[in-house]
Amino acid sequence: MSTPNPTVGAFLFDAIYNTGTRYTFGIPGDFALPTFRWLDQSKLKLITLTHEPSVGFAADGYSRASGEMGVAVVTYCVGGLNMLNAVACAYAEKSPMLVISGGPSPSDRRTDSLIHHKVKTFDTQRRIYDEVTCASAVLNDPETAADEILRVIREVKAQCRPGYIEVPYDVVDMPIKLPQAKPAIVAVSDREMLEAALLEAADFINNAKQPVIIADVELHRHGLTDLALEFAKKVHIPIAATLLSKSIIRENHPMYIGVFSGGFSEPAVQKYIEESDCLILLGAFISDVFLGMNSVSLERKKCILANTEKTRVGLHSFENVQFADMVQGLLDAPVKVRERFENPNPPVDAVPLSAAEKTEALDADTVFRLLQLHMGDNSTLVCDTGDSLLGAIGLRTGKSNNFISDAYYLSMGFAAPASIGVMAANPERRCITIIGDGAFQMTGIELSTAAKLGMKPIVIVLNNDGYGTQRHIIDGPFNNIHRWDYTKICALLKYGTARTANTKGEMEQALQEAMAGDDMFFIEAMIPKHDCTRPLKRLGEQLAAQRDPSKRK
Amino acid sequence: MSTPNPTVGAFLFDAIYNTGTRYTFGIPGDFALPTFRWLDQSKLKLITLTHEPSVGFAADGYSRASGEMGVAVVTYCVGGLNMLNAVACAYAEKSPMLVISGGPSPSDRRTDSLIHHKVKTFDTQRRIYDEVTCASAVLNDPETAADEILRVIREVKAQCRPGYIEVPYDVVDMPIKLPQAKPAIVAVSDREMLEAALLEAADFINNAKQPVIIADVELHRHGLTDLALEFAKKVHIPIAATLLSKSIIRENHPMYIGVFSGGFSEPAVQKYIEESDCLILLGAFISDVFLGMNSVSLERKKCILANTEKTRVGLHSFENVQFADMVQGLLDAPVKVRERFENPNPPVDAVPLSAAEKTEALDADTVFRLLQLHMGDNSTLVCDTGDSLLGAIGLRTGKSNNFISDAYYLSMGFAAPASIGVMAANPERRCITIIGDGAFQMTGIELSTAAKLGMKPIVIVLNNDGYGTQRHIIDGPFNNIHRWDYTKICALLKYGTARTANTKGEMEQALQEAMAGDDMFFIEAMIPKHDCTRPLKRLGEQLAAQRDPSKRK
Repeated sequence: MSTPNPTVGAFLFDAIYNTGTRYTFGIPGDFALPTFRWLDQSKLKLITLTHEPSVGFAADGYSRASGEMGVAVVTYCVGGLNMLNAVACAYAEKSPMLVISGGPSPSDRRTDSLIHHKVKTFDTQRRIYDEVTCASAVLNDPETAADEILRVIREVKAQCRPGYIEVPYDVVDMPIKLPQAKPAIVAVSDREMLEAALLEAADFINNAKQPVIIADVELHRHGLTDLALEFAKKVHIPIAATLLSKSIIRENHPMYIGVFSGGFSEPAVQKYIEESDCLILLGAFISDVFLGMNSVSLERKKCILANTEKTRVGLHSFENVQFADMVQGLLDAPVKVRERFENPNPPVDAVPLSAAEKTEALDADTVFRLLQLHMGDNSTLVCDTGDSLLGAIGLRTGKSNNFISDAYYLSMGFAAPASIGVMAANPERRCITIIGDGAFQMTGIELSTAAKLGMKPIVIVLNNDGYGTQRHIIDGPFNNIHRWDYTKICALLKYGTARTANTKGEMEQALQEAMAGDDMFFIEAMIPKHDCTRPLKRLGEQLAAQRDPSKRK
Repeated sequence: MSTPNPTVGAFLFDAIYNTGTRYTFGIPGDFALPTFRWLDQSKLKLITLTHEPSVGFAADGYSRASGEMGVAVVTYCVGGLNMLNAVACAYAEKSPMLVISGGPSPSDRRTDSLIHHKVKTFDTQRRIYDEVTCASAVLNDPETAADEILRVIREVKAQCRPGYIEVPYDVVDMPIKLPQAKPAIVAVSDREMLEAALLEAADFINNAKQPVIIADVELHRHGLTDLALEFAKKVHIPIAATLLSKSIIRENHPMYIGVFSGGFSEPAVQKYIEESDCLILLGAFISDVFLGMNSVSLERKKCILANTEKTRVGLHSFENVQFADMVQGLLDAPVKVRERFENPNPPVDAVPLSAAEKTEALDADTVFRLLQLHMGDNSTLVCDTGDSLLGAIGLRTGKSNNFISDAYYLSMGFAAPASIGVMAANPERRCITIIGDGAFQMTGIELSTAAKLGMKPIVIVLNNDGYGTQRHIIDGPFNNIHRWDYTKICALLKYGTARTANTKGEMEQALQEAMAGDDMFFIEAMIPKHDCTRPLKRLGEQLAAQRDPSKRK
């Protein structure tokens, strides 16, 4: 007697479990209910959220914090299209995520009838997802479904980008044909190109006076951070991170000099990078954010660039060189060991509040200074876009991989739902979520899910009465928002403790109470309307100086 | 001296104003800030919301309530992609909407650099929007921008579907080249086909015993409702509406027999329609919702179908017949005048609560019965998906065009943000918004915008502790949600009055207080977890009977 084949649904969730993922995130809907029934019977845990944009961010947060593939399960169109922005964020920032959507039956497709949730054609959702994913499949046929599932998962893992699987509501219950053993096509480096690139890179580094590594997020995504750090330690070259990779190594590491982000950077970091004659950019996104909204430019002839898309030494590109081979290769390449270097920007102890300061009005910079003083080493910071992110540039987190933000795609509303995924991945770390008031109005209500699950984030809303970062670009009535009594969120959710901090002393007290307690702790930090953090001020000064040379420092 | 040409931004908003639209809806972001500056200086009013999914629904609500084009203004990708589901809803339900998105500069496109918010390519957002719109343009060139703007607006108005205009952040400030006068291509009917269709239709109707008109939403979208009603009155043929077109004529009109939606319908309506030998389907969407989740089927040979896509009499299709010509033509066609008909389902007075009932536990049906008793003629009902919609089937609203729901696309979370647009369009009508607790958790927080603007909706949350409608399909832990203290929404927003109604008497009292007052009034209506409205029960019984003939009534 042979065991019957599993159903499409059972096979799908087993395949996901086998990749290492343990949590999934979703919201059901009628086209997806049979899929949810299989998910409920699988070994995977499911966290349901309140709104689909949050489902995507939570799955992404889980992915970033755990290193595993994030999984988002939604219904057809009304769910899937509502989540699109969060998946686009994962695509842009190369975070591996699998979207599973319920879908119409193959028989619906044959008659092309008007079924609720249908937009233009039954393929509308898949076509849209093709624009924000690296692989997609519609499981119309249980004969090919297993191979399709494995193909999409393989691409997601290899490319660290989202994939899309649409599961018809009836096919999900059908027995699957087991996968055909096919050798996976694994990309390999052109050995001659690789060796030439490594020798040229080694030579370039050896001839440089002030080489520095910028360790960016693709190292983390592809599990190569340890190799890069080993290389740095072996040859004594310091490491900077970027806003997107912040905390890729612990930020009190002796080799670490801080976050580079052009004109947003701490001055010592910016100076050291700009004066470097050899920037080793590993896994880097050379984006406008990387360059501090293009406040600086980096000469390509001074750079060694290796990421999943390119390998370049100075102006020489090398084709068909795999990123992992290049990073591994650097470790074995003939790079000379340097004298121990003087860290241009070592961590400094944050200055405690003086008695006089405690009664002063709170400002944005002080929130981050107090976080540095009190957050301890066992916290993960999740920062939303704007000053919530910029203010954290100079803050040093105590462990690796404990800072999470969508620092390239910059979608407001990321942090609250992403925190749900982060807490699922790292229950042993305290999650501190920092959100502007505008972004909090977008998705802050997702703390409902923290309440449902008994999660205990510390949530800090930087309330500067509107879209503060935008006020520094173009101000107008469109940057005004309705002023909530934010602390009432705890009453609405019947969960957590809330404080409003008007002064620096109140902020410190709230933060200490939050850290000491065992509860969701919500802090409304009152920030003057036109205040901003030092990094944003620095950028403004540098951009002004570019326009007016007399203001150059 | 010649007047300088207006900028692209000024021209765009002037062109929109000239169509009759008065309100726009949006959320700014850096790529869109220069566009918002022009919007702020235009004759249009701008309502900013909290989250982009709401922007789309609010613009759609405005469109449905005003009959004008809804306008949604957002930033590139993080805004536009976040709003996609609401635009898909407008596409699916043929509601005219114009999406205006900020975008990158043509010079960014030339270098194809990594700019924040970029996903795959700079064309990603436009390609995605091409799947949910009828026309799109990216205004990279001020020489052609005016023609492009007018082309997209013309298509939106003609097709009653969304269009997309992407405005680069720098081009918006440039002087525009005034439009070239080009004759617009207007589709015209094939006269021979039209005449044949009309004669055959007249003959079909004249030979029928029980003809009935189903007046669907395309009549409303294309301004043809009055013609259809005139036809009905002239020849004495009764009119039904659908869930999507409910209130297309006032529901106490003597020619009106109720809402047809297959097995969801009131029994008298369903019987009358199913027994009809001539269904005149004007502007109809023959969807699964139309057919009560396919609980009934309609024989095509008994139908006359005229909408923007098809003209069919029995099994005969007629090509190139314009919908408007067909409706106008029916009025002039040789259709015989019938005897006055007996309305099979006249409006009946709702039965007041007895003294004994007042202390009974509230249920879903009673909410709608009390609405019928107390909502008066000057209210607009906005209903979310699920029982919030189904419960309203038998309720008779007192004026035309005062019922709004996304009754085909069925996206949860529609009602709260759509209400913002509805109230902007019809400030003189009281807006009553009915939302399930699950849908309220999605977008209910958008009442923030009502608070900001001093709008005074009556909001009824049907709290049945989870995704109630889904529990009747497949139940599981995925249908559970965190139970909020919903009435605390007023404290969070610092606005409005809130009541919880546990009994029928409390519900009546709350509703009377709400109607009498001049405030946002929030009512949490406590519904037993497994209760549902009569229409959903009726459907369940009919579907069960189809499977088991012994249960047929």
